[in-house]
This record gives sequence, C-alpha cells and structure tokens, in this order.
Amino acid sequence: MARIVTVAAAQLGAIQKADSRQVVVARMLDLMAEAKSKGADFIVYPELALTTFFPRWYAEDRAEADHWFEREMPSAATRPLFERAAQYGMAMSFGYAELTPEGRHFNTSILVDRSGAIVGKYRKVHLPGHAEFEAQRAHQHLEKRYFEPGDLGFPVWHFLGGIFGMCICNDRRWPETFRVMGLQGVEMVTLGFNTPSANALVSGEPTAKRIFHHKLSLQAGGYQNSTWVVAVAKAGVEDGHPLFGCSIIVDPEGEVVAESRTEDDELLVHACDLDATHFGKQEMFNFAKHRRIEHYGLITSRTGVILPSE
Amino acid sequence: MARIVTVAAAQLGAIQKADSRQVVVARMLDLMAEAKSKGADFIVYPELALTTFFPRWYAEDRAEADHWFEREMPSAATRPLFERAAQYGMAMSFGYAELTPEGRHFNTSILVDRSGAIVGKYRKVHLPGHAEFEAQRAHQHLEKRYFEPGDLGFPVWHFLGGIFGMCICNDRRWPETFRVMGLQGVEMVTLGFNTPSANALVSGEPTAKRIFHHKLSLQAGGYQNSTWVVAVAKAGVEDGHPLFGCSIIVDPEGEVVAESRTEDDELLVHACDLDATHFGKQEMFNFAKHRRIEHYGLITSRTGVILPSE
Repeated sequence: MARIVTVAAAQLGAIQKADSRQVVVARMLDLMAEAKSKGADFIVYPELALTTFFPRWYAEDRAEADHWFEREMPSAATRPLFERAAQYGMAMSFGYAELTPEGRHFNTSILVDRSGAIVGKYRKVHLPGHAEFEAQRAHQHLEKRYFEPGDLGFPVWHFLGGIFGMCICNDRRWPETFRVMGLQGVEMVTLGFNTPSANALVSGEPTAKRIFHHKLSLQAGGYQNSTWVVAVAKAGVEDGHPLFGCSIIVDPEGEVVAESRTEDDELLVHACDLDATHFGKQEMFNFAKHRRIEHYGLITSRTGVILPSE
Repeated sequence: MARIVTVAAAQLGAIQKADSRQVVVARMLDLMAEAKSKGADFIVYPELALTTFFPRWYAEDRAEADHWFEREMPSAATRPLFERAAQYGMAMSFGYAELTPEGRHFNTSILVDRSGAIVGKYRKVHLPGHAEFEAQRAHQHLEKRYFEPGDLGFPVWHFLGGIFGMCICNDRRWPETFRVMGLQGVEMVTLGFNTPSANALVSGEPTAKRIFHHKLSLQAGGYQNSTWVVAVAKAGVEDGHPLFGCSIIVDPEGEVVAESRTEDDELLVHACDLDATHFGKQEMFNFAKHRRIEHYGLITSRTGVILPSE
C-alpha cells in the first residue's frame, strides 16, 4: 500500500504586534478548514506562529518579552486548534515561543497526532543573530537574546506511517540538521520560518538572493537525505518589517513541487508519497554503503574554524 | 591587498580507451597555454584526467585494470605538464588513478605549486557504485572494485595566499566533505568529476536532473561553508558512454559565476577574490558562534541509518 501523506503547508501572512493570539488562531482555523476541504492529513504552520516575530525588538530587560511566550500548550487561546484538528482527524505542527516551568526559553515546534495529542517536541538548535543590541544592523535579530539553544537534539518520530522530524528556520542552512535526522531514516522534515526580506548587514541585498539561499539549503537537505521537506513561512510586513514568503514543499530528489505565490495566509497542498524516499536511501544516499565516518571527526570534535598550521 | 586568484577550470572532452597518455597530455598542454594567455594563476583539470573513465568496464581480475594507474608522479608521460606549469609559474591540480608502491589503488588528485612541486595530495573518500558486476545496471560503475576509499581525510593547504582543499566527483554530494574542509577555513575547493549522463538504474532520467543534483550539491557546499568551488568535468562520449559537462565555478555565496557550454576541451577562467569568503565566514556561517556540536553526534558515531524504536 502506498504511503501517501497529503500535507498542507499553511503559510501565515504578517502578524502585527497588536494582534492577539485569538485573532491569529482564528486565521489558523480558517486555513485548517481549507486544508480539510482539500483532503489534508497533516497541516504545518510556521515558526512562532502565534505572534509577531518579536526577536526583532530589543528589550534591555529580557523578561519584557515573556508575554510573547506560552507557559502551557495547549493554552486557552490555542485549545481550539487542537480540538478542531482532532475533530478533523488531521495531524498538525506549529511553532511557538516556549517558557518552561523552570523559566527556560526556547523556540519550539510540536508534532500533534490525529487525535490532538502532542507526540513530539523540537527546540530550535541553530539560533541566528545576536544577544545584544547592535547599532550597525538595519534591524535587530535577537534570537540569541530571547532563547537558549534547543536541548533536545534532532529527534524523529514514527508518525502517519512514516518517519517525521522537525527543524526551525535557520536550522535549514546547517547540513548537520538534515543529516542527523537522515541517519534516523527521516522521510519528512517540517520547517517553519520567519526570514527578513532584507539583510541587516548588507543594504541592497536583493530578496531574490535570500530566497535563493533558502531554497538551496532546503533542496540540498532534501536531496542529500532523500526526504520530503515542508517549509512554511510567516510572511508579509509586520509593523514595517518585511518577511519573505516562499513556502515550499521539496521532494526527496530535491525538486520543489509546490511553492506559495503570496506573502499572505496561503495554503499549499501536496500528496507526498513517503515511498519516494526509498530509491535515494537505497542507492546514491545509502549511508551504510558510502559514508566514511572515520574522516568526519572534525564535524563533532570542533565547533569553530581552526586554520591549518603554516 | 586583495587576494585574487585567477582560476582556469580546464574541462576535458572524451578520452577514448585507445587514447594514450601522450595524446591526453598534449590536449592538457593546449589548455594550459590558453590559461596562460588569459592570466591564470591556477589550472584545474578533472578527475582521472589522464585516461578514459575505466571503472565503467568490469574485469574479473582487478589487476587487468592496473595499466590505467600511475605508479609514479610525475611520470615520463606527465612530466611535460609539470615542466610547462613551472615555466608559466602556474599552479595546477589534476586527478589520476594512483597505484602505490605497496600495491594500493586510489582515485587521487594532487595540488602542484607554481614551481611544479607537488604540495598536496587527496584520495577520494566517497567511492560511488559497486564492487561486483551488476546485471540490472545499464552501465557499470565499479569504483568500489578498482579503488579503496581514500585514507588521507580532507586536508587543506596554505596555497596561493589562501586555504585550498580538494575533493573528487561523488564527494560533492556529501555535505561532510565540504564541512570538514570548512572547519579548517577552506577558501577554495577543487573538484574534478566524470559523471555519466544517464542513471544506470533509472532509464529515462533526464540528464538535466543529474545536472541539477550536481549543481545543487556544489552550490550548497560553497554557500554553507562560504568557499569558492571549482568543479571540472571530463565530458563527452567515451567509447559510446556519455558523460555530462557542466564544469562550473561557484562563488562563496553559492552562485554559479562561470559554466562550460560544451562537452569538449574547454577553458573557464574566473578571477576569484578569496576575501569574498570573509563575510559568510564571519556572519551567517560563523561556525564558532552558531554550530552546536553537542547535537551532531550521530554524524560521526553512526555510518548507516538506524530507525527510532517504535
């Protein structure tokens, strides 16, 4: 029997600072209804789906940002998502800012099964940006201020008849992300993102170049691990700050099979055959046959660059 | 002072079984003369530049293939390359099949400085294909029969004012290749290749798809490590077996800045600014700031896939 998972990539347009969780959840429910009407098994929303991309704003007191974080999941505001998804029998993933009972802050995404139960959690490992205000930047990107790096690694789960994993935004640029999941047999990777349309340090860098890097990383990650990749944007202009769209679904050969056309709320639906991962995993990327870990040591023994001796 | 290295990617067209080393070296010298006239500092020839791509032919007795291998370098046949390069003051890299005094077989490339001295050696780590005759394949790809995996890792060298590394053909599909060199600060990676235009196991796979995967891997490797990549084909139809061209030079942002137009002997020349690697290495791919090796363990502890427990 073919293992077809019909995925809905539920791109969200801008969320303004003033928008409440309730307003956003209502939009998410609209997309979920559309996904249901199109036969989706699984809906994927972006990173930090419930709020504006708050790490662009500096607060000397980090705790001032705590109101962007969720202390429980589901919460009163998000419970309707879980209930509707369970009613539809639709699995779901979305990202949010997590504040743990111990007071730890993570950029988190969850995997929710068809019954509405949280069965997986991922905490963003590769936090981009910086921790302090940097005046030379056209805009701030303070993820290293408001979050600590994820502490859960890159787990995968038996889910919807296949092997599923999650990562978030900047994780896509790091081939280690995909490889660690690939070594666990991942067949579909979800990735939500909020990516500014402008480079904070390179005035005039075209958005097209930034989209090129986005796609390049996702397509290489998919191809080199023979996995589906479902990348979902939060897009549009948030209080004057533009984020690009370009939600895409990438097949296990690295080809883009669906791509968003707007920077608004928009749904992409694609029937993904998980068995399409087999050929790549058995041949070109048959890791057991071809990888040579005896020569990869630096990847895990060294964090930063060390130049060779002269 | 800008660190500009003018690189000549010296693509070779087909080399037939019947062609002698002398015939091939004469073609290589012609390309070298053209490179000199265009101001090249460094000329890069493909993998197994001196012979046809012999791993496509099965021999029950492996030793029957030994005549494709070089027992010394320079040899009588290749000495003119070293002498002419030294005369021009041009650095050089090319690939060949290496048979060591101990009887070991490697798919090798060398780095030769402006004086004609061999200063670096790389032996291909990721051997594609298979070791025994496989009747289901449209053509054989017996690299695992005729070579053993490289035993030198992925070293880099101080060379031409920068940090240079080498890899060969199928190595490009493995992000570990580029990352190990990236962690040593590599600024230019050379890669020679012989890649069949047809998939031996997928009749009808378009060559365009194979070229897409080729470029995707090189561009991702360049971008994600902020390094120049110089990829040089042996191309054309060798005794009925087509190899694609698509020699390319990739800049440290992953963009293709030069690309071959033929499947014949053809030279691409590009002035590469090694300082263009700095921005990426200091910001997006500042490894010391952003990598999280505590979560990469599987990459070096596990060769093949192990599925998660149910």
